[in-house]
Amino acid sequence: MKHTKPRLDISSFAEGIFAGDRVILGQAITLIESNLESDQPDAAALLEKVLPKTGRSLRIGVTGVPGVGKSTFIESFGKYLVNNGKKLAVLTIDPSSPLTKGSILGDKTRMDELSKHPSAFVRPSSSATATGGVAHKTREAMLLCEAAGYDVIIIETLGVGQSEIAVSNMVDFFLLLMLAGAGDELQGMKKGIMEVADALVITKADGNNLKNAVEAQGVFQQALHLFPVPESGWHPTVLLSSAITGSGIEEIWNVITKHNEHTTSTGYLLKNRGRQNIAWFQDRFMQLLNIDLQQFGEIRNFQKKLEAEVSSSALSSQAAAKQLLDAYHDALKRKS
Amino acid sequence: MKHTKPRLDISSFAEGIFAGDRVILGQAITLIESNLESDQPDAAALLEKVLPKTGRSLRIGVTGVPGVGKSTFIESFGKYLVNNGKKLAVLTIDPSSPLTKGSILGDKTRMDELSKHPSAFVRPSSSATATGGVAHKTREAMLLCEAAGYDVIIIETLGVGQSEIAVSNMVDFFLLLMLAGAGDELQGMKKGIMEVADALVITKADGNNLKNAVEAQGVFQQALHLFPVPESGWHPTVLLSSAITGSGIEEIWNVITKHNEHTTSTGYLLKNRGRQNIAWFQDRFMQLLNIDLQQFGEIRNFQKKLEAEVSSSALSSQAAAKQLLDAYHDALKRKS
Repeated sequence: MKHTKPRLDISSFAEGIFAGDRVILGQAITLIESNLESDQPDAAALLEKVLPKTGRSLRIGVTGVPGVGKSTFIESFGKYLVNNGKKLAVLTIDPSSPLTKGSILGDKTRMDELSKHPSAFVRPSSSATATGGVAHKTREAMLLCEAAGYDVIIIETLGVGQSEIAVSNMVDFFLLLMLAGAGDELQGMKKGIMEVADALVITKADGNNLKNAVEAQGVFQQALHLFPVPESGWHPTVLLSSAITGSGIEEIWNVITKHNEHTTSTGYLLKNRGRQNIAWFQDRFMQLLNIDLQQFGEIRNFQKKLEAEVSSSALSSQAAAKQLLDAYHDALKRKS
Repeated sequence: MKHTKPRLDISSFAEGIFAGDRVILGQAITLIESNLESDQPDAAALLEKVLPKTGRSLRIGVTGVPGVGKSTFIESFGKYLVNNGKKLAVLTIDPSSPLTKGSILGDKTRMDELSKHPSAFVRPSSSATATGGVAHKTREAMLLCEAAGYDVIIIETLGVGQSEIAVSNMVDFFLLLMLAGAGDELQGMKKGIMEVADALVITKADGNNLKNAVEAQGVFQQALHLFPVPESGWHPTVLLSSAITGSGIEEIWNVITKHNEHTTSTGYLLKNRGRQNIAWFQDRFMQLLNIDLQQFGEIRNFQKKLEAEVSSSALSSQAAAKQLLDAYHDALKRKS
């Protein structure tokens, strides 16, 4: 479909995005997400073009184990936001299942009502092919949405991979959805998520489940005390919500707003974003360097050999590193 | 003192180490720890020389907040080990205090009895000058001790910095010492330590404090359930110990032994060490690359400029990374 007509040029892409055209925004994200080498210059140029218009959205990360009800929560929460005059973009990191050869989150009816709302933009982005680079591409998609004038960006992540920590490093507020009940459901939680959460929300707090949810609220609130107060000075809270009764949704938005006022007034918001930017830069640089290394077939093989040697302690990490750097220098010299 | 007589050559160093000479081992660690550019080739050569004799020790990391009684614990635990026929090396990562211009752990009487035991080698290594490289130097000191035939190596870290995670990545078993009492003492804990601990030990479990310690044992055991079972398949336990009554010491050694049998039989021990080695290699390579970058004054300045620009979103992380890589290539080209 993408190739039935010639692609827009960068200026037309940018104009469409700035005008809030959702179709063009969607195509622009497709361009950004492309793994084709030939698409990279355009993708980079578009990103530079929209950059001055970014930074004005509230960035929220949402995660939780499968079954916690992330889509249902975002549908309720999102509808609350758009009904209160906000423009909302939702980006989901959706790892494809190697078993089903399809999306795990998959079914087309996810956030069905929200997707149709004129103030909402919902974009599932499959991470099937882009191992490693997912987070970067999601972050860049977020910047495009910001340039398109969305007030709030929600980045949903599946909560079963490494992506949560990467997402927590691109948002202003990180929301962890939890299930009440026995401790077992927590086994699926990845390390370190609770410690980066700005709020926990216990979902499905209704009917017979309400009592459990209130109990879990106490347990989690206590568990949070095991962690030091984060640098933001913000004390994470534990909230309850129900998609059936709609309870908790407004309260959660109030907490996010309060957090935003707090971090804006203390200067933490901008400081944190600046640091996030620098970290992304360093990360990108190391990524580029690795790509640069891999362009030399002989270095790829040499690195594999070195890894096998250090793995079995036949070679020290120091010596291996030195040899790899020398090989890189030599390869660059031969090339120039 | 070091320069009153000419330094041993590499072969004499290695022979002394293999023969278990503690004075030569100490001098070798001093060489390894040296930040002098001129010492690096010898240090690297010595490391390669001893490498084949490494890998036979049980590597234990011990951490905990100041006041938890780390030295007292290691003195008790260490005496138990040497009295049971083990050779033990203790390496401490001891950040110097910028206020007192001296060591924080400081007083010379630390582990006084243990230090004097013929089967023990206790080495505090100040990390005052070696920001960043501490962990690498400690790891290399550990390898020297292994080559000297120590059965058990304990690496003690102060528990107030970034060093715990680095230490957890160089040991087979990571022990976290905790204090019973109100939640406040946990505020000093760095993020993520509890999750890498193979066992928690509540110290000072005696007298009036015993009741609190038993209560804390329950709380921490419950808190550990919040984390997923680690890849090793080992369920961390919470133990009590008292330096006054000597209780718990044997139990802790039994747990460590059991962990070692478990990870040896599953193959996790070797797999984990192999991975640790590769991670150290990659880390070393990135460190060398950064040093290589910094040798070019113009790149140092350029990088600062790029960081300021990405921090304020004037430039994308992608574009900045590309510019930095180009600058690096150019600098190398001009040099060659």
